[in-house]
Amino acid sequence: MSIDLLIRNGIVLTMDEEDRKFDRGAVAVSGDAIVGVGPEETLAAEGAARVIDARGGIIMPGLINTHTHAAMTLFRGLADDLPLMEWLQDHIFPAEARLDADKVYAGTTLACAEMILSGTTCFCDMYLFEGAVAQAARDAGVRAVVGEVLYDFPSPHYGPIEKGLDYTLRLIEKWRDDPLVSIAVEPHSPYLCAPDLLKRAESISRTHDIPLVIHVSETKGEVDQMRERYGKTPVAHLSDLGLLSPRLIACHCVALTQDDISLLRDHNVKVSHNPESNMKLASGIAPIPELLKAGVCVALGTDGCSSNNNLDLFGEMDTAAKLHKVNTLDPTVLDAGAVLRMATIDGARALGLGDITGSLETGKRADIIVIDTDKPHLTPMYHPESHLVYAVRGSDAAASVINGQVVMADRQLTTIDRTALSAQIREIGREIREFNGN
Amino acid sequence: MSIDLLIRNGIVLTMDEEDRKFDRGAVAVSGDAIVGVGPEETLAAEGAARVIDARGGIIMPGLINTHTHAAMTLFRGLADDLPLMEWLQDHIFPAEARLDADKVYAGTTLACAEMILSGTTCFCDMYLFEGAVAQAARDAGVRAVVGEVLYDFPSPHYGPIEKGLDYTLRLIEKWRDDPLVSIAVEPHSPYLCAPDLLKRAESISRTHDIPLVIHVSETKGEVDQMRERYGKTPVAHLSDLGLLSPRLIACHCVALTQDDISLLRDHNVKVSHNPESNMKLASGIAPIPELLKAGVCVALGTDGCSSNNNLDLFGEMDTAAKLHKVNTLDPTVLDAGAVLRMATIDGARALGLGDITGSLETGKRADIIVIDTDKPHLTPMYHPESHLVYAVRGSDAAASVINGQVVMADRQLTTIDRTALSAQIREIGREIREFNGN
Repeated sequence: MSIDLLIRNGIVLTMDEEDRKFDRGAVAVSGDAIVGVGPEETLAAEGAARVIDARGGIIMPGLINTHTHAAMTLFRGLADDLPLMEWLQDHIFPAEARLDADKVYAGTTLACAEMILSGTTCFCDMYLFEGAVAQAARDAGVRAVVGEVLYDFPSPHYGPIEKGLDYTLRLIEKWRDDPLVSIAVEPHSPYLCAPDLLKRAESISRTHDIPLVIHVSETKGEVDQMRERYGKTPVAHLSDLGLLSPRLIACHCVALTQDDISLLRDHNVKVSHNPESNMKLASGIAPIPELLKAGVCVALGTDGCSSNNNLDLFGEMDTAAKLHKVNTLDPTVLDAGAVLRMATIDGARALGLGDITGSLETGKRADIIVIDTDKPHLTPMYHPESHLVYAVRGSDAAASVINGQVVMADRQLTTIDRTALSAQIREIGREIREFNGN
Repeated sequence: MSIDLLIRNGIVLTMDEEDRKFDRGAVAVSGDAIVGVGPEETLAAEGAARVIDARGGIIMPGLINTHTHAAMTLFRGLADDLPLMEWLQDHIFPAEARLDADKVYAGTTLACAEMILSGTTCFCDMYLFEGAVAQAARDAGVRAVVGEVLYDFPSPHYGPIEKGLDYTLRLIEKWRDDPLVSIAVEPHSPYLCAPDLLKRAESISRTHDIPLVIHVSETKGEVDQMRERYGKTPVAHLSDLGLLSPRLIACHCVALTQDDISLLRDHNVKVSHNPESNMKLASGIAPIPELLKAGVCVALGTDGCSSNNNLDLFGEMDTAAKLHKVNTLDPTVLDAGAVLRMATIDGARALGLGDITGSLETGKRADIIVIDTDKPHLTPMYHPESHLVYAVRGSDAAASVINGQVVMADRQLTTIDRTALSAQIREIGREIREFNGN
């Protein structure tokens, strides 16, 4: 078999089931697939059409961001340090009401640029105009699971909910069998979606066997509100409606009861943990150590970067590892290896892409990043996993390959024209600033 | 007056008392001093011997790291996710017992490289072989307050405590009137220093009018132990011994009572907040909003990077801003402006360098950094302060000037030979790895 790309001369972390590592390893790619992973000497370099030299750095699976509102890059830093409702109602909602497909495409492309440059190769998005998100991800060469946000009230995009469900079905049809983009059904939350909408969303997800993505129990206030309205927690409510399944990705899960955790485990629901957003919005701290102990698959996400304010999953791993240590007063919880799994293979499993990405294994798609460790803050290196979680930042990503395509090499993007994008984004920023009176 | 350096074409954040900003501003430097700050058109460029173009980025005071053990860069990631005592006794103490002045010089130079590359221009250090730390900082051109750690038991460096006090006095003598390095007296903590040692340390600090740096109330366990031994909290103990003064820099201050906070305020003690280390070691969360409310001067520090594991103060600001929001469940506490002050002007005030550094003002020493904001994750920019805390990372620092010397331009270090340093550090790392059986 011809080798199109060989990534060599690095420490290979496969993140496979046996957690195999190769101190001086290489990964061979043919077309969109990984065709070899192992010690460098076992993978002949002669035949490779292209070689990326990791220069002694780390070769690993690309990171997976399981919860984003990518186009919110346009609103980063527009309004911070405010009470949640003032932030949403006085700043974010008015700005979002003026969005259109072109702006969402531009904002998502900007997010893709940031994600590629910080080592993320796959993201799961919930927002408006998701057709534009899908196209932007496709054009940037980034793997994505996208879905139009659905709720009871009219959307600034599609209007009434019937049209939102139609739009979702059209997205499913349009992107069927795409190598990079897949579609999810994405009702916003149990508190913004009536039981009927939730059940219809689940039905579409089941029929097409695609993910169902939803915000769940992000704050205690939301749980209190749901208890008042339905007499049960959001998780119990979803359970009673038949929404708990291995296809469900429950984002946030901050305010959970023991019964909630059992329900999530029993139905093999996936949890997307978004620690930085939960901290910045003062939502609370999700019981991640308990979820992991119960055997729940927990993945990592940044949330929209307006509530973060970045899409750097390396920073998010660091925060996750530290936050739960101080929250439990136990320095051994969420060790570096556990957090790395959340951001790689368990992210893939959460999105139903466990056979596609999230680890370096022969037969999987080639979603691979290279970390440059020849830097003062990464020298010496005793344990690569420790560096990746506690010291590496997105800016240390030197190269990125997605589905076999080199989308970044030597920190240069190959699929996005940065200069043109910056000019366009600054123009959109000026418009938003004028409208918001900033 | 001749202008040696003009930094122009940026948004200037002065961090002065009026918090002045100039949207299109410049800073003029002559020798080691700032001689002009203002709108670009008021500062003639013609005469400048050298010009740094900020390209529309941010021009601001260099960040100040008020608590480090710089040479612990050598042990970064050597042992993580362990119980505190196992980490210290099985890994860190044995490794430290084999340190010497050369290794500490190399490790500190490495820390200086990381700090310069991440926008820090001044640090306050506590460790062994501080003469070597002082020399490394001086050679790297980094402003530093350094002091040999003092405790009751023999030191791997100086042996018995009498020699430690002598060593401190010799450091004071040697570095008197140095433009970059100044000396502090640094008893480790109330629990490792007997009352007599603490009083002698305070006496040296008072006589020479130099900072007294100490770890205080880092964990609840330490406070319990002190209560058992002395019948009072560490802060009350220090108060009774006469150690509380405006010269005292109390590091950590995680486990404080209301009375402790009042004592710290009444004596104008400075607090160094080290959130990431406190999180990673599961020590707890310092009551920073209460301290600020009481009017205590709170500065920021990373602690040694073995318990962090980096020296990036931009990341530390982000963590500080978010941690206290989630801890108080109030998204408005520790806003971006408050956190920026902690890392700049209040850091300078804490170290007794309020007239020297920490803000861009005519007459102060020229400690200035430039942030490159022409990046996907910093575009658009609505509020520079928000970006600096929530989105900028150390790797966005484009240039750094300390005491008028350009120590970094276009991410290239001018005072440190990175290649030679890396080779030396890898060799030391090999030695440490072999000894530790890693």
